[in-house]
Amino acid sequence: MTRVYLAGPDLFVHDAVNIGRRKVELCARHGLIGLYPLDNAIDPAAKDTSLRIYRGNENMMMEADAIIANLTPFRGPGADAGTVYELGYMAGRGKLCLGYSNDPSSYADRMRKFSDVNSRDGRLIDALGLTVEDFGLSDNLMMIHALDLHGCALVTPRQAPVDIWHDLTAFETCVRMAAGRLASTHAGAKS
Amino acid sequence: MTRVYLAGPDLFVHDAVNIGRRKVELCARHGLIGLYPLDNAIDPAAKDTSLRIYRGNENMMMEADAIIANLTPFRGPGADAGTVYELGYMAGRGKLCLGYSNDPSSYADRMRKFSDVNSRDGRLIDALGLTVEDFGLSDNLMMIHALDLHGCALVTPRQAPVDIWHDLTAFETCVRMAAGRLASTHAGAKS
Repeated sequence: MTRVYLAGPDLFVHDAVNIGRRKVELCARHGLIGLYPLDNAIDPAAKDTSLRIYRGNENMMMEADAIIANLTPFRGPGADAGTVYELGYMAGRGKLCLGYSNDPSSYADRMRKFSDVNSRDGRLIDALGLTVEDFGLSDNLMMIHALDLHGCALVTPRQAPVDIWHDLTAFETCVRMAAGRLASTHAGAKS
Repeated sequence: MTRVYLAGPDLFVHDAVNIGRRKVELCARHGLIGLYPLDNAIDPAAKDTSLRIYRGNENMMMEADAIIANLTPFRGPGADAGTVYELGYMAGRGKLCLGYSNDPSSYADRMRKFSDVNSRDGRLIDALGLTVEDFGLSDNLMMIHALDLHGCALVTPRQAPVDIWHDLTAFETCVRMAAGRLASTHAGAKS
């Protein structure tokens, strides 16, 4: 059975274990094994806890055939850094990459909520004078096109759900697409 | 001669081309070819400009033997997402990973500037109730330990330089380390 690494800042939500359980269940319903980082057995009192977590997550990624990354903006205008690192890692290893964001707005529109954004010399700039990427994409082009080229285009809802951390509709769409893609890959490998 | 991919939000600074030129010169001084994303010849008026940029950057990463990632906090408490994606991609491909941040503070300390941070049930939480990673590291553990395990530990100055986007002291330390590591790898490969 094929394995999917479940990346996201879900880990930082108060009921992270519960979210992981629901995600793994949705994977099972579509014939996939979901690997959720919190399922790594790490002793929080151990020395080098953070290094053990890294190794546990990297081992899970090595085992997985695909990643579903929760790219919902986290603590700022864009996605969670740890999740983005993992998406890059899986793309680098040639694994199937999927992702979703529960916020359908563009990066540039979102930036306007965080900073004064102005036009200067044909580019958008924030209050510090740093260029704001303005391609109409949901987030930094590297993640968005990584999904286009290494898997399936970013999934977003038409409207942000009321509870962006617990609504798993867009996640389930990714699971369904991953199951379809992985099934056809495996069928191809067998034929 | 060995090639190093120069990742960072430098691209978003007003004189991004100048910063790239200086970085490439520093690489040359240490016997390395620096590959700077802005050196991709992209017609900004072309359709699919962002996709062309992605492809150009991915091709540069495929050519490179190593990455030096500028992980200086960008637009929030942590590193730039595009840079983090690229670090993950290069780690996934088994390339040598180096990085620096011109801000020596820890992620948790930095978060205190962006949000009310409190302790609850033995974890730090931000104003939205989301857990704040608190391992005393400079940023999300995935990036920091990626450097530890796939290259060289994060380079930071003792004190943040006055101009965090133009001071290349920590960058040059990375160049020197990359040159040393790549020279010994190549010597090993020849023997």
